[in-house]
Amino acid sequence: MFKNTSAMSPKITGELLRQLRQAMKNCKYFSEPIQAYIIPSGDAHQSEYIAPCDCRREFISGFDGSAGTAIVTEQHAAMWTDGRYFLQASQQMDNNWTLMKMGLKETPSQEDWLISVLPENSKVGVDPWIIAADQWKNMFKALSSAGHSLVAVQDNLIDAVWPDRPERPSTQLRSLGLDYTGISWQDKITALRAKMSERKITWFVATALDEIAWLFNLRGADIEYNPVFFAYTIVGMNTIRFFVDLKRLSNPAVREHLQLDSPSKPELSIQTFPYESVYTELQAICAALGPKDKVWICDKASCALTQVIPKTHRTPIPYTPLCLAKAVKNATEIQGMKMAHIKDAVALCEFFAWLEKEIPKGTVTEISAADKAEELRSQQKDFVGLSFPTISSVGPHGAIIHYRPLPETNRTLTVNEVYLIDSGAQYVDGTTDVTRTMHFGTPSAFEKECFTYVLKGHIAVSAAIFPNGTKGHLLDSFARAALWESGLDYLHGTGHGVGCFLNVHEGPCGISYKTFADEPLEAGMIVSDEPGYYEDGSFGIRLENVVLVVPAKPKYNYRNRGSLTFEPLTLVPIQVKMMNTELLTQKERDWVNEYHRKCREVVGAELERQGRQEALDWLIRETQPII
Amino acid sequence: MFKNTSAMSPKITGELLRQLRQAMKNCKYFSEPIQAYIIPSGDAHQSEYIAPCDCRREFISGFDGSAGTAIVTEQHAAMWTDGRYFLQASQQMDNNWTLMKMGLKETPSQEDWLISVLPENSKVGVDPWIIAADQWKNMFKALSSAGHSLVAVQDNLIDAVWPDRPERPSTQLRSLGLDYTGISWQDKITALRAKMSERKITWFVATALDEIAWLFNLRGADIEYNPVFFAYTIVGMNTIRFFVDLKRLSNPAVREHLQLDSPSKPELSIQTFPYESVYTELQAICAALGPKDKVWICDKASCALTQVIPKTHRTPIPYTPLCLAKAVKNATEIQGMKMAHIKDAVALCEFFAWLEKEIPKGTVTEISAADKAEELRSQQKDFVGLSFPTISSVGPHGAIIHYRPLPETNRTLTVNEVYLIDSGAQYVDGTTDVTRTMHFGTPSAFEKECFTYVLKGHIAVSAAIFPNGTKGHLLDSFARAALWESGLDYLHGTGHGVGCFLNVHEGPCGISYKTFADEPLEAGMIVSDEPGYYEDGSFGIRLENVVLVVPAKPKYNYRNRGSLTFEPLTLVPIQVKMMNTELLTQKERDWVNEYHRKCREVVGAELERQGRQEALDWLIRETQPII
Repeated sequence: MFKNTSAMSPKITGELLRQLRQAMKNCKYFSEPIQAYIIPSGDAHQSEYIAPCDCRREFISGFDGSAGTAIVTEQHAAMWTDGRYFLQASQQMDNNWTLMKMGLKETPSQEDWLISVLPENSKVGVDPWIIAADQWKNMFKALSSAGHSLVAVQDNLIDAVWPDRPERPSTQLRSLGLDYTGISWQDKITALRAKMSERKITWFVATALDEIAWLFNLRGADIEYNPVFFAYTIVGMNTIRFFVDLKRLSNPAVREHLQLDSPSKPELSIQTFPYESVYTELQAICAALGPKDKVWICDKASCALTQVIPKTHRTPIPYTPLCLAKAVKNATEIQGMKMAHIKDAVALCEFFAWLEKEIPKGTVTEISAADKAEELRSQQKDFVGLSFPTISSVGPHGAIIHYRPLPETNRTLTVNEVYLIDSGAQYVDGTTDVTRTMHFGTPSAFEKECFTYVLKGHIAVSAAIFPNGTKGHLLDSFARAALWESGLDYLHGTGHGVGCFLNVHEGPCGISYKTFADEPLEAGMIVSDEPGYYEDGSFGIRLENVVLVVPAKPKYNYRNRGSLTFEPLTLVPIQVKMMNTELLTQKERDWVNEYHRKCREVVGAELERQGRQEALDWLIRETQPII
Repeated sequence: MFKNTSAMSPKITGELLRQLRQAMKNCKYFSEPIQAYIIPSGDAHQSEYIAPCDCRREFISGFDGSAGTAIVTEQHAAMWTDGRYFLQASQQMDNNWTLMKMGLKETPSQEDWLISVLPENSKVGVDPWIIAADQWKNMFKALSSAGHSLVAVQDNLIDAVWPDRPERPSTQLRSLGLDYTGISWQDKITALRAKMSERKITWFVATALDEIAWLFNLRGADIEYNPVFFAYTIVGMNTIRFFVDLKRLSNPAVREHLQLDSPSKPELSIQTFPYESVYTELQAICAALGPKDKVWICDKASCALTQVIPKTHRTPIPYTPLCLAKAVKNATEIQGMKMAHIKDAVALCEFFAWLEKEIPKGTVTEISAADKAEELRSQQKDFVGLSFPTISSVGPHGAIIHYRPLPETNRTLTVNEVYLIDSGAQYVDGTTDVTRTMHFGTPSAFEKECFTYVLKGHIAVSAAIFPNGTKGHLLDSFARAALWESGLDYLHGTGHGVGCFLNVHEGPCGISYKTFADEPLEAGMIVSDEPGYYEDGSFGIRLENVVLVVPAKPKYNYRNRGSLTFEPLTLVPIQVKMMNTELLTQKERDWVNEYHRKCREVVGAELERQGRQEALDWLIRETQPII
């Protein structure tokens, strides 16, 4: 799925910018006046989705897209964002702001722009907690070489001019037992320490929220759609420090789960600290480091925390051992993900059966359809919430990849236009993410042709057999070959990692032409397979299944490397009406029939068990074999 | 094609190493004793193939593979090389040397090894002319952080202990007219200056030999198989400095070609300097740089030359504008490449017809076959020499990817084993590189099966249609999909750029899973398409055509990006006897038939013109359509 947008009227920012510029000159915040202030998108944890209290860039500019960096100088206010957001940003920002369209040749980089507008010897400020260490380094170098300096301003200057800034959320923690996680947090700590001693690492600093939630088998609800909670962890060979709003640890179930009152072993005793004290605790740890001690921290962690660790002791890594361990799901997690996908399919079968009946009445809109899908999902066992805002789009809206229906854009579903729904949910046993593209009347030959190319690409990835050790980016072109052959393409990646009752987007694997640094796929990893085609102003097509990496057993086994392939976890029929079956090879037809057979068998049984007859009838109708 | 090996008895190096270690302590060469000396593979021009005078690593160790770095300390002598050369290096080096097997987990990096063996505060020396700037930087950092220092030793210490070191070659220069190059050197200079002023660059330093040869439309024979000559060039907005052994410029044709005595315009007047004076001239240029002047140099250029340019004025680039311009062949070059490939095909058709007749007699060996192929090529117009050492390999030798027949390994061709020949030539109008795999008896079902998967991969790349702007590495998996499906693979890239009467390997494009930094393919680029399969101890299969990137016209044109595909320049039949045609799709059969139709039409006409009836009969027989 793709990140969405919301309201579209420009925010009035003149007074706010005046206040910010005053703060930039106020020696209460920094010893000398600063000439520019950088406002990145993120929070202190490299989160993709952020809590309202961290939406600082949105607060100062009005622009609420998922990607963007604002820079305010004494004279200018500029916003860098990418092609997905040019229109939205220009609509949401008033004319105090200049839009910097990233990816266009004439657009200067933030560094070049700063150098061109700043007076000599300027100071550029940034909150070191929300700039990643690697970004700091690049910016620092560029500014230094031009005679300026990048300075860390400890108090956030946006917060200083944001009187009604929301509190940092501190939702209740939920502990997950072995029946959901498969591995206790104690065993995860032990495995982490084994990796540390293998690499002669004495300390590990965890800053990513999903990694911390995974490590402790805890979940929260601090960030919408993401069952995570604000925390840090520092793991040593004999100690575990856990930084979190301590109020949350009064819950007896959580205390019990973490063995706070009766640790089984001294090295598994968790010391708890307030969330904010991670900085001083890490300082204390670093002050006591031996000459050979090494500290692991992700190279995307905040500059503030990274720089606490003296350079000679710091070992930055692109992916932490938790990120890698979390990506490979164990048998319990796989079982949970399968169950979650069956329940999700039940809800979607019912949803599509309902749409088929309701659309001709002209009463279903993009929003009401999304609401209905959510309602049906919420009836399923262990439903927690959506895993991202539903993309429910009709006709031309389908071509806007990150479209999210709003009251002012809301369109009615009809039998004349293609409908694309990309949606998913969090269940306690797993996370789902599925896209289906449907026509409830008669699709045009061109719509069918494009759908069929996308389907061919989806199958090419899903059925691919490839050697152990293959990186996902090597599979990306398989998803495009059929489109390319007809001169078509789509301008996004093909797949992302999916968490297990965790973030719907996770690293370190994926399927994309854009990266080379992804980790090799291995059995147990779970990714999405979602090629598409978007005809601007007319329709959008995307077909997305969540798929599990599984061992394959082809005829030969070159150099004993072993082979892998994918098993679809998503079991929702793919609309046959949208296919031009003449364009499919026999192998592709067999794949479709086998997929539909499995949908019917597995989801059919659950629909029957739940007594959802209408949906079952729909499922059976939609899974007739094609010839 | 792949780089080859030669003789296999270890070199006695005890005395040489003693002398080298003495030189390391001799303050004649460096003010203080150095504790380690690094001997890289290359020459001062990033050349893949090097002249005998530059084979310093081979001289000191005996190991003559194409890749390897030697490091000698007071106690140790170690050689880092990759898996292709483990066996060869261990056979060619005596027990003074430790083989460091790159790619194995337990093998330390050069930096880590140095740090583990060096006494505190050591000096590590290297000739700054043969270490690339980026490699220097990495080594410098690693050693510094461990308290050692990397120092540039101006006199090469291997040369100091190499009494009979060969002279640097200075072969005659050959000037190429517009009928071969399509663009005059003057126009190339003008285009280069346009690129420079577009990027506000005032100077460009060219160090790669093929770029300099291409720029001036000159060729030499200083390095075997590569029609290049030792030179440097520094281009400013109004000046051209050409550094070359000045003896070579006494040739009146060359003087005329370069307009040395009567330049047409002042800014096209070439100032000539001795090869060795590039350093002092660049120093003089840099001493006079204005504050905003910028100098382009490839980031793979020698550390010595790179460091002459003050850091604030230096703009290192991964690919120079000459490298990029050279890669896109113009109409004249394309025409020349086509002609060269037709002549090459004539020679190969005759060769294969001859093999078919001679093999049953039991008199043809790997070496005599390679010699015959060379003899037949040499009969073709404008033949200059081979473009690389012929890989002529029978049966199990075919599975050694970089095999080159030697008297002690020479095997006889029979009707019982697969024969693989990877060969190519330099003609004045173009460079060729072709691999064919043949059986002159009855291939086994497994040999045919593997051949057919390789063929499917070859066709999948050759027939691929892809958007303008696609990088070659995105096509690599197409070549492997059929092999992967059966659990097979090959452990090399799929294609490399090919020069036009220049180096058979050139950047910046290629087709490989190994790189992400290749430049996008564009119409006019020429690459090889050479998937393979190697069954250790049994047989090797590779199918290689040189292909031209050409515009494609599929049904649609998404976002007006345009599409590309490949046109084979190599026109040599692919042995039908080796195919299991049942495994081919109709599309693949059509491709084979159309390819063979073109071979017959184009090469047949030339064979007829040259009156080579036996080869023509063979061609017609080998290009019968398959069903």
